[in-house]
Amino acid sequence: MRVAVVGLGYWGPNLARNFAKIPGVAVAALCDRDKTKLNDIALGYPAAKKTASYTALLKDRSLDFIAIATPLSTHFSLAKQALAAGKHVLVEKPMTKTGAQARELIALAKKNRLLLAVGHTFVYTSAVRYIKHLLQKKALGRIFYYDSTRINLGILQPDTNVIWDLAVHDFSILNDIFPEKPLSLRAFASSHMRMTFEEMAHLILTYEHNVTAHIHVSWLSPVKIRRILIGGSKKMVVYDDIEPSEKIRIYDDSVPVHPTSVTPFAPAYRSGNVLIPHLDQTEALYRELSHFVTCIRKHTTPETDGAQGLKVVEMLEAADRALRTKSEVTLI
Amino acid sequence: MRVAVVGLGYWGPNLARNFAKIPGVAVAALCDRDKTKLNDIALGYPAAKKTASYTALLKDRSLDFIAIATPLSTHFSLAKQALAAGKHVLVEKPMTKTGAQARELIALAKKNRLLLAVGHTFVYTSAVRYIKHLLQKKALGRIFYYDSTRINLGILQPDTNVIWDLAVHDFSILNDIFPEKPLSLRAFASSHMRMTFEEMAHLILTYEHNVTAHIHVSWLSPVKIRRILIGGSKKMVVYDDIEPSEKIRIYDDSVPVHPTSVTPFAPAYRSGNVLIPHLDQTEALYRELSHFVTCIRKHTTPETDGAQGLKVVEMLEAADRALRTKSEVTLI
Amino acid sequence: MRVAVVGLGYWGPNLARNFAKIPGVAVAALCDRDKTKLNDIALGYPAAKKTASYTALLKDRSLDFIAIATPLSTHFSLAKQALAAGKHVLVEKPMTKTGAQARELIALAKKNRLLLAVGHTFVYTSAVRYIKHLLQKKALGRIFYYDSTRINLGILQPDTNVIWDLAVHDFSILNDIFPEKPLSLRAFASSHMRMTFEEMAHLILTYEHNVTAHIHVSWLSPVKIRRILIGGSKKMVVYDDIEPSEKIRIYDDSVPVHPTSVTPFAPAYRSGNVLIPHLDQTEALYRELSHFVTCIRKHTTPETDGAQGLKVVEMLEAADRALRTKSEVTLI
Amino acid sequence: MRVAVVGLGYWGPNLARNFAKIPGVAVAALCDRDKTKLNDIALGYPAAKKTASYTALLKDRSLDFIAIATPLSTHFSLAKQALAAGKHVLVEKPMTKTGAQARELIALAKKNRLLLAVGHTFVYTSAVRYIKHLLQKKALGRIFYYDSTRINLGILQPDTNVIWDLAVHDFSILNDIFPEKPLSLRAFASSHMRMTFEEMAHLILTYEHNVTAHIHVSWLSPVKIRRILIGGSKKMVVYDDIEPSEKIRIYDDSVPVHPTSVTPFAPAYRSGNVLIPHLDQTEALYRELSHFVTCIRKHTTPETDGAQGLKVVEMLEAADRALRTKSEVTLI
Repeated sequence: MRVAVVGLGYWGPNLARNFAKIPGVAVAALCDRDKTKLNDIALGYPAAKKTASYTALLKDRSLDFIAIATPLSTHFSLAKQALAAGKHVLVEKPMTKTGAQARELIALAKKNRLLLAVGHTFVYTSAVRYIKHLLQKKALGRIFYYDSTRINLGILQPDTNVIWDLAVHDFSILNDIFPEKPLSLRAFASSHMRMTFEEMAHLILTYEHNVTAHIHVSWLSPVKIRRILIGGSKKMVVYDDIEPSEKIRIYDDSVPVHPTSVTPFAPAYRSGNVLIPHLDQTEALYRELSHFVTCIRKHTTPETDGAQGLKVVEMLEAADRALRTKSEVTLI
Repeated sequence: MRVAVVGLGYWGPNLARNFAKIPGVAVAALCDRDKTKLNDIALGYPAAKKTASYTALLKDRSLDFIAIATPLSTHFSLAKQALAAGKHVLVEKPMTKTGAQARELIALAKKNRLLLAVGHTFVYTSAVRYIKHLLQKKALGRIFYYDSTRINLGILQPDTNVIWDLAVHDFSILNDIFPEKPLSLRAFASSHMRMTFEEMAHLILTYEHNVTAHIHVSWLSPVKIRRILIGGSKKMVVYDDIEPSEKIRIYDDSVPVHPTSVTPFAPAYRSGNVLIPHLDQTEALYRELSHFVTCIRKHTTPETDGAQGLKVVEMLEAADRALRTKSEVTLI
Repeated sequence: MRVAVVGLGYWGPNLARNFAKIPGVAVAALCDRDKTKLNDIALGYPAAKKTASYTALLKDRSLDFIAIATPLSTHFSLAKQALAAGKHVLVEKPMTKTGAQARELIALAKKNRLLLAVGHTFVYTSAVRYIKHLLQKKALGRIFYYDSTRINLGILQPDTNVIWDLAVHDFSILNDIFPEKPLSLRAFASSHMRMTFEEMAHLILTYEHNVTAHIHVSWLSPVKIRRILIGGSKKMVVYDDIEPSEKIRIYDDSVPVHPTSVTPFAPAYRSGNVLIPHLDQTEALYRELSHFVTCIRKHTTPETDGAQGLKVVEMLEAADRALRTKSEVTLI
Repeated sequence: MRVAVVGLGYWGPNLARNFAKIPGVAVAALCDRDKTKLNDIALGYPAAKKTASYTALLKDRSLDFIAIATPLSTHFSLAKQALAAGKHVLVEKPMTKTGAQARELIALAKKNRLLLAVGHTFVYTSAVRYIKHLLQKKALGRIFYYDSTRINLGILQPDTNVIWDLAVHDFSILNDIFPEKPLSLRAFASSHMRMTFEEMAHLILTYEHNVTAHIHVSWLSPVKIRRILIGGSKKMVVYDDIEPSEKIRIYDDSVPVHPTSVTPFAPAYRSGNVLIPHLDQTEALYRELSHFVTCIRKHTTPETDGAQGLKVVEMLEAADRALRTKSEVTLI
């Protein structure tokens, strides 16, 4: 299978590096408008065609699969051209700027019988898979909440707000691990440096069965935090993505659901063991790309296909709407 | 000066212990309905009168100062009786259940020329004082935000929600350190264990000059976190109250406010030194009580007087209203 | 049972406080040469006799049990007098300045059929008990090493070196958890502030079956560390005594003992789960004192009796000898 | 300048990657016996000659500089051949297996007027440079000690013990930052897995002016620690190399050197601010290699030349001798 990587900024080289490790896959072409970037990476891929012309790239009939890691505003156009040219497509997250665009790509891929995958890499991490497995086994009991803090200093994105930049990860994780349907979304955001795009935000989602989610994203925090808490009636999970080898901690302790009649109002906490499970160290991006390659080979649907990408875009649009209207937005 | 401590649950004994250390102050009486509690603590105060009768206590003309550490619902009635009996009063936080009650106490204290203080202890910590000093010096530059995470597992309070239990601390800190006026408050909260009082909540406050505050309080977190971030254009502060000796970190790094024209949209973060200042280790409660005693002696107004207590109660009421109406509430 | 606490410096008040909580035990007397200390604590024990005279104390026939928390140099004389006066005795660690003194006390206690206990409190902590239980179950496999870091800034003791002050804890733990016999001891120490008593030291002990122990103690470290590592062929334990609630971590990961023939020299590490067990929160000192009281009532031998105290003193003497001779010292 | 990198295991590719970034330097040849490794890396260096023959490499007259990153046992032979062939040489640490070999290389390099550098990368880290600068300014006051803990799980080296593998870093740092001369060395080590090379060790060095150093290295620790404490009479430094961005902490607190006459024996610690300085993020290896290239161009002596490499080898030999004789070894 011959793959082209389009967009060689921060993420594109990671795609190329991981594609190159998959048996039977060749990084056959590299594309970027910026010739410096093209030269920088090209050295490592001597057999790859280097081009600044996307149109020329798409004319290469030997290419099977186009991976798009360009700025968001170009995703739709580039993906549409690739699908029209009969190429399988991986587009980075967020999939598109609007739900309408996402739906158009999905329809086109379906019509042309092509794979359309979205690079929601978090879904392929060992940590998220482990948590999903815990939830499927009902190991946490009844779910109370998901609470994510995803904050750091910079980089202020030039063309989008912090929700589209960082909350996109939480939306993909939530859609992956929670079978419950989201019901509504509220958003609070502010801008302090530039007065264009929001630089810090809090999102509140409500789900069926009294499950809530809170997401805090910011480009203006002096410390970098990547921590998700998931509370349940039996156990609770802390997922700290900064930790190099101990990302997940499972707390046995919880608050008793049915306090005794003797102490009706003061169910003091009980405390139990904490388990830090060993997680497989495979790079999530390698797992993601291998999965897409397998899906192409076997004509199956990837876990993060266009439909999943669309769901995330719709939640991002809902967040924008909630900010604009300063009110609670109903999700489907 | 002869002090009586009323209410010998968790906090009352701390009041007694600290009063006893102040030169010229005698813990002259201890009062609780529960005779076991009275006996437990009385041993340490052989000279103190022990009584279950608050009425009897107030008749003791030798007492100057009544410190009330009983459940919230009793604050108003007990404080009112004490002021009516001509005693100076310290009432624990939150001051009262309603703003109307707080105002009545303030008026009564004023009429009788008595001290009415509220036990907002955080205001007297070395950490909050240090931060207040930084803000007064404009050391952080223009203020962007205050973000507090105050979460742990249990204890579910019998008669109040998590906002009245935990966010009360942040309200007192915010009122102390920010000269800006709060403009509005939004609130989201949920209950998962009992279906009575809210067990986790997020509050969003907006202030003048584009300052925002976010407060996350919860009784349902597997980990205990007490962390406040304050972001400014020049420096940022992290105040981690769990840290035994390094509670405050001051980050020189910030995001440049005026990006150069060359890179108009991508003001990458720069990074600087971090300073962990040495803080005075005096117990905040001792400092608070000494301050009240001095105020009585010198006929001055305490930093956390009835007016400050009222402001906090009004914010708590605003939070209740925001929850009930599911909408943004204007603060005066 | 009527107890007297002798020596009201840092530790004595803790003894009094915990004795007072044991059913059937009365803190009947408090003794210290320093009348200020006597007055400070006496308030909390109105029923206790306060005296600066140890001789007077021993004449009180109503007293059953003398707890000695005075400076080391006085342990022998005070304990001897108490045993001669027919009192059960608890003496703080280290038991005495010399092994000869310890043996004399043991003989006297035996002759007079009295309890002689030593306050090696660490042996009664939940953490050490948990580790001992793991070792008894052979859960760690073959034991490789014990490595303790017990360092902080100050307080320089007036009459002893850092080994007698801090390594005493490790000796008591080692004697408690390791069934293996210690074979030899080496020591290195230095003094940098005062040129009298050593302020930092490293001790190396060898045990049967190729087990080694290393102990690092210091009064000159800017950071406080209290961490013990225990390595075994199957699992390893980290015991961090600074951690408030997660003191013990059990690592499944270890290095395979029998590398395969294919890779004879490079048994790369494998990694497994980490377990943080929930530990009982009872104060170790309460557990220790309750145990001594039970031993007196039932005429049984305490876990940390005179013989255990003697073993620790002999190891401290061996450390002194190793320092003086700059050579390896054989332990019996 | 045309460079060849010999040995493409773990470290060699890092050398090639950093050489490639230095202006005016070309990675002209890559050499390894293992053709797989040669192929793996060669892709990234299409212009480089790939060869399994070191002899052939040395015949290439266009090459200026040979960087040797092969196993220790081959260092001497490969470096000698390169110097004989008129090439400048960088050899990885430890420089050679014996001091005699190191001296022979130094003499040969001098005779042929070639650069002989040793890859003691730690010396070029921002952290070590910062510490060296502090010491040069006497900012810590009188130096008390250096204490290094460098422990982790695995990898057991096939042909050397843990001292040659890990303590080599501390020796290079000590030689770099301490002007004081080392006087003696003691060593304690043990083997628990294989019974060949030592897997854990403690080294004690004494220096002039009552400065001591302790180094703890181990392949058998469940946790990875890389922490150096440096204590002085005025300030103390903690250098934690695991920390991604806060590697160095400078503690103002220290123990007063001259206790007052009133409290002659108990100079309680005082406590001050902690500073975490911002450190330049340049990769140390890049700084090291650039320095070597500059030294070749300007005919100057590198900071870690053959003489420095020899000093470290002599300390490693001294450690072996101390282990073998179980006694204190005098350093020149």
